[in-house]
Amino acid sequence: MTDVQSTSREAAVAALAARYRADPKQADTPWNAALATLLTHRSVRAYRPDPVPPAVLRTAVAAAQSAPTSSNLQVWSVVAVEDPARKARLAELAGHQRHVETCPLFLVWLADLSRLRVLGSERGRATDGLDYLESLLVAVVDASLAAQNAVVALESLGYGTVYIGGMRNRPEEVAATLGLPADVVAVFGLCVGLPDEACPASVKPRLPVEAVLHAECYGGPPSADLVAGYDAALRSFQLEQGIAANGWSDTALQRVRGPESLSGRHRLREALAARGFALK
Amino acid sequence: MTDVQSTSREAAVAALAARYRADPKQADTPWNAALATLLTHRSVRAYRPDPVPPAVLRTAVAAAQSAPTSSNLQVWSVVAVEDPARKARLAELAGHQRHVETCPLFLVWLADLSRLRVLGSERGRATDGLDYLESLLVAVVDASLAAQNAVVALESLGYGTVYIGGMRNRPEEVAATLGLPADVVAVFGLCVGLPDEACPASVKPRLPVEAVLHAECYGGPPSADLVAGYDAALRSFQLEQGIAANGWSDTALQRVRGPESLSGRHRLREALAARGFALK
Repeated sequence: MTDVQSTSREAAVAALAARYRADPKQADTPWNAALATLLTHRSVRAYRPDPVPPAVLRTAVAAAQSAPTSSNLQVWSVVAVEDPARKARLAELAGHQRHVETCPLFLVWLADLSRLRVLGSERGRATDGLDYLESLLVAVVDASLAAQNAVVALESLGYGTVYIGGMRNRPEEVAATLGLPADVVAVFGLCVGLPDEACPASVKPRLPVEAVLHAECYGGPPSADLVAGYDAALRSFQLEQGIAANGWSDTALQRVRGPESLSGRHRLREALAARGFALK
Repeated sequence: MTDVQSTSREAAVAALAARYRADPKQADTPWNAALATLLTHRSVRAYRPDPVPPAVLRTAVAAAQSAPTSSNLQVWSVVAVEDPARKARLAELAGHQRHVETCPLFLVWLADLSRLRVLGSERGRATDGLDYLESLLVAVVDASLAAQNAVVALESLGYGTVYIGGMRNRPEEVAATLGLPADVVAVFGLCVGLPDEACPASVKPRLPVEAVLHAECYGGPPSADLVAGYDAALRSFQLEQGIAANGWSDTALQRVRGPESLSGRHRLREALAARGFALK
């Protein structure tokens, strides 16, 4: 047993060191196969062309359906896209993201209030609660919990993934491409495939835990030192990856500076209204 | 190897049979420890009083931070609540949910645009992009992906959890209880603790996979037969649990019938505006 525990301890320390670019302070980190999958996540954008077997897709969806869902409403759906022309169109709509086209399987996760709307209509029942912002949020949370369970399932089986928020750049055209009815909108996409070992992906460092974890009450913004330290950690990661070493804070602020920096998503509310979401 | 494979095959079939209350049609379901954790999820509302060790909490947050985050913005935070009086107050705000008070650890997951807002303000940079609905959605998705990774991590370590959407019933009072600044709102809570073995929880059946998984294009609403079959499956689960056997469709339609059925969340948009979310 000593060997296994020693190996686990080393794996836990290595995973936390990669995630935070710092020595883990705690000596008693628990470890198991599921934690190994979770903590070593990395975004994969280069895929082998091998198709994803139907059994893998169905297992990923079973994992997704096993995620919690608010009041068991299950207000989400997923479209599995493998057709090259459809993937190419979605890649274009996402802002010409080539990996949407080259991944063998592209999953589009949907906030889906249509199932309950149609059921209510068939039974002559009011469904006015669906017209509130709350119902959109329930559907977005449901879709996110489901998708993340699918990601963990797929990564545990050796597949790579990356989320594509660009599905919200041009929601009406995404809806037309996937034949979405009213009360349904794409929340995000997910590229899936076996990672191309010629282009290995790395673990991206995150903010120190102190920045996101608060005890009892919100502890205020991170210190300038903390932000500077994280900027340095991210720059060292970016240098290793051969990408522009801009750090974190400047890039993040660029991204939120105004409507022109949101890749078209400044009109999301208008697009949602066109899809039937009243957002009262 | 034959024994291990046989055991895995049986575990996979059993997990899928419990989740769907139907015989799995596929003979080639993959299986591993992470999938076992994912597919056997159940909501736990009865806890032993043992505190959650700090190492477990930090590992759960490391798993949460390892989840994907849109453009690496990391626009979420989490407050760990253990103080009995604060848990009691949050239980009341969630509509008197007793397990919020009795769980040893209550995590409140936050959509947190404050970190970037404050950073921009300190540097004299515009952050007008945060005033759009898109930025709320990014934060809600980020918080959801992070929280679900924490759930998987905690369940892999033997802990039980249940999400508490009731944190959105009275958002201003939740914010006051947790000292939240502007641009921060609670998305949901999460009860955490060791399950009380005297009150075992069971796997809740979900809609058949055909209802949520679409190939290439959205396939339309589920058939009346599918809904009737799921209503029957859920009723059989509810009878086993000794709870009212109302099935699914009628209860779900009750929940969305109008503003009066949303537990106060029909005013979420107004509450978000008061928290600083312009939602343009």
